[in-house]
This record gives sequence, structure tokens and C-alpha cells, in this order.
Amino acid sequence: MPVLVTLLTDFGSRDHYVAVLKAVVLARAPGALPVDLAHDLPPGDVEEAGWLLAASWRWFPSGTVHLAVVDPGVGSDRRILAVAAGDHHFVAPDNGLLTAVLELPGVAARAVDREDLFLPATGATFHGRDRFAPLAAYLAAGGDAAALGPLVDDAVRLPIPPPRAEGRAPRPDAAGAVLHGRAAHVDRFGNLVTDIPVSWLGSGPCRAEIGRQATARRAGHYAEIPQGEVAMLPGSNGTLELSLPGESLARRWGVERGATVRVVVIPAPED
Amino acid sequence: MPVLVTLLTDFGSRDHYVAVLKAVVLARAPGALPVDLAHDLPPGDVEEAGWLLAASWRWFPSGTVHLAVVDPGVGSDRRILAVAAGDHHFVAPDNGLLTAVLELPGVAARAVDREDLFLPATGATFHGRDRFAPLAAYLAAGGDAAALGPLVDDAVRLPIPPPRAEGRAPRPDAAGAVLHGRAAHVDRFGNLVTDIPVSWLGSGPCRAEIGRQATARRAGHYAEIPQGEVAMLPGSNGTLELSLPGESLARRWGVERGATVRVVVIPAPED
Amino acid sequence: MPVLVTLLTDFGSRDHYVAVLKAVVLARAPGALPVDLAHDLPPGDVEEAGWLLAASWRWFPSGTVHLAVVDPGVGSDRRILAVAAGDHHFVAPDNGLLTAVLELPGVAARAVDREDLFLPATGATFHGRDRFAPLAAYLAAGGDAAALGPLVDDAVRLPIPPPRAEGRAPRPDAAGAVLHGRAAHVDRFGNLVTDIPVSWLGSGPCRAEIGRQATARRAGHYAEIPQGEVAMLPGSNGTLELSLPGESLARRWGVERGATVRVVVIPAPED
Repeated sequence: MPVLVTLLTDFGSRDHYVAVLKAVVLARAPGALPVDLAHDLPPGDVEEAGWLLAASWRWFPSGTVHLAVVDPGVGSDRRILAVAAGDHHFVAPDNGLLTAVLELPGVAARAVDREDLFLPATGATFHGRDRFAPLAAYLAAGGDAAALGPLVDDAVRLPIPPPRAEGRAPRPDAAGAVLHGRAAHVDRFGNLVTDIPVSWLGSGPCRAEIGRQATARRAGHYAEIPQGEVAMLPGSNGTLELSLPGESLARRWGVERGATVRVVVIPAPED
Repeated sequence: MPVLVTLLTDFGSRDHYVAVLKAVVLARAPGALPVDLAHDLPPGDVEEAGWLLAASWRWFPSGTVHLAVVDPGVGSDRRILAVAAGDHHFVAPDNGLLTAVLELPGVAARAVDREDLFLPATGATFHGRDRFAPLAAYLAAGGDAAALGPLVDDAVRLPIPPPRAEGRAPRPDAAGAVLHGRAAHVDRFGNLVTDIPVSWLGSGPCRAEIGRQATARRAGHYAEIPQGEVAMLPGSNGTLELSLPGESLARRWGVERGATVRVVVIPAPED
Repeated sequence: MPVLVTLLTDFGSRDHYVAVLKAVVLARAPGALPVDLAHDLPPGDVEEAGWLLAASWRWFPSGTVHLAVVDPGVGSDRRILAVAAGDHHFVAPDNGLLTAVLELPGVAARAVDREDLFLPATGATFHGRDRFAPLAAYLAAGGDAAALGPLVDDAVRLPIPPPRAEGRAPRPDAAGAVLHGRAAHVDRFGNLVTDIPVSWLGSGPCRAEIGRQATARRAGHYAEIPQGEVAMLPGSNGTLELSLPGESLARRWGVERGATVRVVVIPAPED
């Protein structure tokens, strides 16, 4: 069975850059199978890359190697990380892209010091090809992760505030709490995927607010939302999602990734 | 040899959704090879998805599993279909996407009732991951299609009017007939691919009309069309195509998918 | 190990065209692994396709088959070329796409005359499916390249002027030379990739000009360029690249692919 190598970059689809990553991986690990994770990120958007990786990696089988190259610091002295978590491997620049992965239990992060694995450099602008892809190939071909470099505990983490609950602790009978989070991702459909665990909302009435916009409608899936209405749903990552089916809610509300989301969990009358 | 699993969605290329489908397929059917059919459809465009699938599936080898998830009703009680046609398998929501496939001879359509195959649900917004991908993996791994659920004969079909000929029956000497059809697809180049079999036009003079626009020029291939001119050609699916090489005819004529196309097959003088 | 088949087209991502190429390749060469090179080229841009192929092919392993279909002359009497260079195979229309490949040492170019390998034609608008993909599959399945047709020495070449140095010969101490070249490629980030070998610039001061725009700043990588500044860098192909990190230099300077680039290598004071 082939070892999967996922590819996550901001290289887009216009150039040959993604193909060259695959070429280098397959030249060195001929039994690997490259799988595109995403490439159409805004250039240099390390946070977006981290979010996509965190939302995806666990669906891949054991042994998968995840290659992530959103690397505005390419060529500088930023480190290259090789992180093992369970049976998954991650190779990425040390720029915060792996922030969520570094929180996983039992994670081992190494600062790669294996220049012998790198391709001879032609310039310093394409480490994806010259450094990251050879590292992914090394791991996909069964190379020992522990031999890639020393363990480090100071990997760069993005200062993304975690969601929090004010008032009552978040639990199914959370009525009365105010939840604070962010629009962590805006997807292709314009849905706003927040970082607030949907379990914090309980099953009663609540009201989600972003700036001056708000909705108090809850739904289980898109098709039960009346046309033109905005609703809260349990998203596919287990977090609260806001959606306007058939249109982009992000555009309608003028919201971008990172916007503050506030959810008021309304007390039941007997409270 | 790997079993091919084609993927057709409206998920676009910005998110991780397509990658997660592949992850689930490959985790459960490690010998499969995913092949992207198309993902940049207008969101929710079930008819477009059906057209692309109908134009593509027969070129894949026997045993291919076709996974098609354009599913605005995700999470509702719409059924999931598993359709076998010859040695090809199709998994899709029961929303009309498989309209053309259901017309194939000897087709067996089943309403899937195998919750045991589904992933534990995290919300009801990503059945592609939680339901469709596991079904495709089951089939790709050699699972028995007949065990997926009861045969049904009331699968949803889109009410797309078939092309028709008025006057003489369509045949190579069709002169005098008037053919009625639709712009079934607008491709990347702006070509208008109709649903009118090119064999209905015969080899004599004719005139194609869409609204107030018309051409009487016929060509065998793009390069023989004079610059700036519109012509009729035999398209790659065996239907009439209208093209303005080097430009988008759809834009020039202001035509969208679904526009009515009329072809007057002009009688020869001796008729 | 699978034989890789790269795919380079102007088919975009909206249609089923690329998927159908893969279907035909995999139906006839089940052990092949298709790898997308690029598909989002401007329609009919043969020069861009040639540039992308030239920048990519050598990173793929021996035995790779490169299928390139940017073919505005599809259906006309333009020839189909099968070119062998080292252990790589190239299949493309004879329209200049392979200009750079044809310069490789020991290259063998054949005009394909094997109609027996083609699919039965349905129209003459999709030779990618009906002719090129079967040829790629033939080669991927181990078919003899020498049996594809007679050797030819008159393959079409694009009249792209090579870069040149005026004054002193290009060498590391090139001070005083004036280098002339082109913006050979504009990438996703808006970087201008020229065709001027970076080794021609030497290591001293120089000034790059495109029209009225110019920069005298040199850098080794993007991250050392001050924000908002334009600099020259050694690009990943060994040629000079001009970049404005975080923005599109092509847009800022209003430059398109093909623009003339002039580099004045400034004499050192003791010269």
C-alpha cells in the first residue's frame, strides 16, 4: 500500500511548483502517493494553512507524511521542523504553521539539521523543492524521524486566542454563558467556521453575533434553513458554523477570517 | 492495479474538503487511486455535475467507482444512491445528479441503508466525508454493491427536456428538419456544447440560432474557423458544439448554460 | 513502482477534460500514476506551456512520460511529436511547445504516424483524449518509442530570442556588461522570472530595468527584502528573478510575460 504524502502550499495552480514537489517526492520515494491538501491559500497565509492542516490530518491513515510549505521566510534562518504525532509525520517551516499540531499529546518536534538530505541549492527561493520535499520523501521511504535533528520545545506558535466561555462553564446546560471565539475559517461557500465547540452551546436558544450582525436561528443542516436566512449549525469539525445557504455569508455580512464571534446562550425562563 | 475512484464535487480548491474525501477513501481502501473529475462547479449545481459525469465516466476503466457529491440537501432526508451500470459504480445523493446514468441499460439503483458503513457523525453538514466516501471505499475495496440497500425505481431525475427534431426525422439527409436543443455545457474556453447529436445535422448547410445570434458556418475543428468567426463543430461527445476560437463565445453572445438552441437544416435546392 | 505521466494542458479546472485524459491513460496503462503539471494556463498559450515544461521535467524520475496538450491547432494537419530525451518521453503537438526540449543533447524527435493507437474519433476537437493520451499510455506501458514514427529534424520551434550579454562576456566578474533578456514567466506571486542566468550577473552591483522601472537591490531570498521594495534574486531555475515580496511585482510594475529585461552590471571603481 502506498505511503500517502499530503501537500499543503500557497503555490496556487498556475505554476509548476506543486508538480515539482511531487516530482522530488516520487523520485526519492517511488512508492509514495501524493495527495493535494490545498494550494489556493492567500500567499503567505500561515494561519490559514495551519487551520486547514489541523482540520484534515486526522482523516488520513496512519503513516501519512504531511508536507506543508507556506513559508514567507524561505531562505532565511527560520528552522525546518519535522514533527511526529502518533503515526503521522509533519514537515513544515518553523513559523507557526504547526501550532495546532504541536498541541497534540505525545508530539515530538525536531529541528532538522540534515543538509545531506537536501538537494543542491539553486538559489534560496524554493526550499519546498530543495529541502521540504526531500525530507517528506525520506520519511515516506521509511527513514527514521529521530535521526532528522534534535528535539526542540521552542517551536514557533501563533498567538491565536482560544475560544472561551464567560459565566457558566460550557456544558450541555450552558444557559447563561457568553461564548467568545473567532471566525477561524471562511470556506468556499462563504460559511463562517468558528472555533467555538458546538457542545458549549447546549441545545437551547442562543444568539450568535459578529459585529452588528446576529442570528438566533439554529439548524442541524443547510437544507432546513429557510432561504435567505442565516443560521448556526454544528460544523464538520465539531465547532459552531454560521451559514446562509446558497449565498456567501462572509460576503453578506462583510466578515473576514479572524472576526470576533460572540454567542449568548440564553437562560431558560426557569433559570 | 489500483481501483480508480473519481471525485466530482462543488467543493472548489480553497478548502480541505476534497482532500478529506480522499483521506477517508484511502484509509478504508488503501489500494484505490483517487482521480479528480471536477470540483470547481458553481455551488449546488446538480445539473452541471450530472452533465460532467455523463461526459466522463465511460472513459474510465471497468471497475471504477464514481463518487459525486453536489448535495445542497446534505443532512436532510434525501436518500443516498448507489448505482451499478455495467462494471462502473456510482455513489451520489438522490437529487437528480445521476439522471443520465439512470438511463443506461441494465442499471441497478439502490437506496443505501447501511449506516454501519458510515463514519460517526460530527454534525450533518459533511456527508461527503461521513457517508459518501466510506461507501465509495467499500465498493473500491471490493464490497458487494447488492448489499448496500434495496433496489429503487423512483430515483430523482432532473426534468431536462431532450433534444428533438421537428419535420423530417433526424438522419444524415435531414435537410428540412428543425432541431431543438439546449446549451448543455459552457466549457472553460467559452464553447457552447449542445445536446443535439451532430449526426442529426447531416452534412449539408444549416443554421444554428441562440436567441438573436446565429451562425451558418460549419467546421471540423477549431483551427479552420476564420478568426473572429463563430462556427458549428462536431463536439467531443458527439453533439453539436458552437465555438469562437480564441475567445469565449458564451461571453460574446451572452449565453449561459441552458439557453435554447435551434438548428435549421436547410433543404438542398433539389429538395 | 508506477510510471509517472505528467499532464500539462490549458484545460483549466472547470471541465472534465483533464479527468478524461487520465481515464484514457489509466485504462491503457493501469500501472501509471498521473501527476498534474499545470492546467490553468491562458488558453492556447503554447509558449507558457513550453516554459513550465522546461522548468519541471528534469525533477521527475527517469522513465517519466510528459503529456503536454496546449493545442490551438487541434484537428488541423499539425503533426504530433513524440520526443525522447534521456529516459524522459514527451508527447505534444508540433507547435513549438517542445522548443526547449528539442535543444537537449541526444534528443530524438519523431512525427507520430500510428493511427492504430488512436481512439476512434468522435469529432476532431479533443485529440488530447483521442490521440495524445493513448500515446502517453503506450509509452507508460513500456511501448517502443522508436516505433511511433519517423525521426524528424524540422519540428516547430518558437522564435524566442535567447538572453545575451553585450560588452564583456558573461562570467562571474562580468562588471561592465549589459545583459538583455525577457520576463519569461510571471508566477502566482507576481514574481518576474527572467531568462537571464544569474551567474551572468557576478556578485557586484547591478541594476535591472524593465521599461521605466528599475531596481538596484540584490537579495538572496524574499525575507531579506525590505517591505515594499523590489529586488533581484537568484531564482529557482538558476535565472534572475525580480520580486516584491507580499505583493505582485507584475501588477505593481504593469509588466507581462515577454517584457524586455535589461541588466546593467556596474563596473567596480577600479575597472
